[in-house]
Amino acid sequence: MSSSPVELATPVIGKLNPPRRLLFGPGPSMVAPRVYAAMGQPIVGHLDPFFFQVNEDIRAGLQVAFGTSNSFTMAISGTGSAGMEAAVSNFVEPGSKFVVFAGGFFADRISEMGRRQDATVLRFEAPWGEGFDDDAAAAFIHQHKPNAVAFVHGETSTGVLTNGRAICKAAHAVGAVTIADCVTSLGTMPIDIDETGIDVAFSCTQKGMSCPPGLAPITCSPSALERLRARPTTNHSWYFDLKLLADYYEGARRYHHTAPITSFYALREGLAMLLEEGIGARYERHRLNAIRLTKGLESIGLELTVKPEHRMWALHTPRVPQGVIDLDVRKKLLDRHGIEIQGGFGQLAGKVFRIGMMGECSTADNVDLLVGALKEALA
Amino acid sequence: MSSSPVELATPVIGKLNPPRRLLFGPGPSMVAPRVYAAMGQPIVGHLDPFFFQVNEDIRAGLQVAFGTSNSFTMAISGTGSAGMEAAVSNFVEPGSKFVVFAGGFFADRISEMGRRQDATVLRFEAPWGEGFDDDAAAAFIHQHKPNAVAFVHGETSTGVLTNGRAICKAAHAVGAVTIADCVTSLGTMPIDIDETGIDVAFSCTQKGMSCPPGLAPITCSPSALERLRARPTTNHSWYFDLKLLADYYEGARRYHHTAPITSFYALREGLAMLLEEGIGARYERHRLNAIRLTKGLESIGLELTVKPEHRMWALHTPRVPQGVIDLDVRKKLLDRHGIEIQGGFGQLAGKVFRIGMMGECSTADNVDLLVGALKEALA
Repeated sequence: MSSSPVELATPVIGKLNPPRRLLFGPGPSMVAPRVYAAMGQPIVGHLDPFFFQVNEDIRAGLQVAFGTSNSFTMAISGTGSAGMEAAVSNFVEPGSKFVVFAGGFFADRISEMGRRQDATVLRFEAPWGEGFDDDAAAAFIHQHKPNAVAFVHGETSTGVLTNGRAICKAAHAVGAVTIADCVTSLGTMPIDIDETGIDVAFSCTQKGMSCPPGLAPITCSPSALERLRARPTTNHSWYFDLKLLADYYEGARRYHHTAPITSFYALREGLAMLLEEGIGARYERHRLNAIRLTKGLESIGLELTVKPEHRMWALHTPRVPQGVIDLDVRKKLLDRHGIEIQGGFGQLAGKVFRIGMMGECSTADNVDLLVGALKEALA
Repeated sequence: MSSSPVELATPVIGKLNPPRRLLFGPGPSMVAPRVYAAMGQPIVGHLDPFFFQVNEDIRAGLQVAFGTSNSFTMAISGTGSAGMEAAVSNFVEPGSKFVVFAGGFFADRISEMGRRQDATVLRFEAPWGEGFDDDAAAAFIHQHKPNAVAFVHGETSTGVLTNGRAICKAAHAVGAVTIADCVTSLGTMPIDIDETGIDVAFSCTQKGMSCPPGLAPITCSPSALERLRARPTTNHSWYFDLKLLADYYEGARRYHHTAPITSFYALREGLAMLLEEGIGARYERHRLNAIRLTKGLESIGLELTVKPEHRMWALHTPRVPQGVIDLDVRKKLLDRHGIEIQGGFGQLAGKVFRIGMMGECSTADNVDLLVGALKEALA
């Protein structure tokens, strides 16, 4: 061996000892103990029949969570933003007209990804924290007749829900494929992909699924897949090419990449818990705890940014009161209670707190703990 | 709730009960018990100061494993192929002349990724299982004067090592950036990035690192980063854009994506084990067990595909004897012993076994167990 400086200065990595956090922000959320246990199970190969069984369980569970009968329902081997890039890069081509409903940070990210595919991005903008007017949204689509339309079902930067029914109806009327970012809504409130008319939806694992980050659930409608097969250009991305991923996960089981087995175990376990609870019961739990949280926040004098009709159940954005510095409050929560919430950014920087209660986190006890700690930190 | 067919047929996901496999193929390899334990530690947020400490530990450990002082040394949030796409998409542009040394499946993948970046891909081909002649390789580079040159340090499909010294020297003489696929070599044999002249190297976690798949270690030289900053075109990929990732992991800590925290814990632990053992001792262990394995394979009548001077230490490709069907042998190993090895593919389909002993797997006992079981299965 050589005596390079790198070797002389050999570093030491000590015992891993993470702080115990209560993750009550916009995600990652707390991981369920059962999910940690599943991740301790021994891995198998990425072409092992057992792995494909795991994948089938994930497909079945995700179909319930997304509310779809799409057989093309799987997980991309990356985080939520990888799911976004898979959706955009496969269904938005060079020269596509791509309408994005933009009222937050993640819609901006979708727009940026569209531009990177050399599409013409047409943005229908709303101020961050406000919802879209259905008629105006539909008119915009009819005016521009795009090839693809994207919206954020649950906007993590603002707490705004866009159910997408009017958008998808108009988009289909002009023959556009519809893409929905369901990163913060999956498993926390109904998305109803099929009924809504969403062709392509993606999400993450570290919110409603109670898993660590690492996979991006995705689902595509049969008509979206037809469109993909007919696409004349090749995706610049090999890693996110859904045609190749279909050959791996659907039928042919042709090697594409080495799937992150342990993350698949985790997602499978998160979905097992969802099915055991029952999807209806799970939604009701999130709805009731969202009501409890918003009432609690209002009871300590905080005003909610989002109007009731546009509120998600998993994430809330109370305004930072005048004269209060959000960082000070967040530091107190962290130092005194180990509680992590987040602040706003972009148009809402310094103006809101972002508080999330999703998956395992969504309990009455957690709501009461957070509201009490926040009251104390604001005093 | 609606009464859609999806809900009527609510599936059940039972207890996760993976088979116990001895993973002696080309990867994934066995995960170290300490790594499983680290993955059970509670996650923190992706902007938590503790996460950035973990990231610094990973940087320090990877610098030792890669043999580099590159400060830009980190992990991409995807599998090894995600690292490949990050390397190619950032350093190969539309119109680039891109030379690929192609003697196996993964070099073909690099070529395909280059084509998807609209580069002109120029392949110097060798039959699968053979190494490259240094003088011919250098002459090819001097003839074509490419912008970028890629080679596979350890070709997982063939077991061939390409140390890359002659390639990098010639590439730098014509001003090209050099890219090396170190997926199967990282942590199993010296790569010596800096001495070799490799500008950009990527790897995975599920081989020499003894972790599950899920992250792609990557390192870039200062001159490669300068070239990246001067690049006039934008990467089609937002997820793999190293300029954006630098803002997240290096200094500014600006949110990019939600890093898969648990996978970072795992890689940190794998690297802690590597540092505790000592990089020199680790290489010596792999070298000695590679000798033991090749001798063992020869002792039971198997002929090795790769000549001694081109052999990797982590992966070996004995020929399937005439009249033997590789699938039958592999099935016997799996059924009798739970041992997974792989067969060849592409030019070597049906012609070789692929046997890997990497990271925690590389022990004399495992070598003897495998050779004994293989002897029995071939009998």
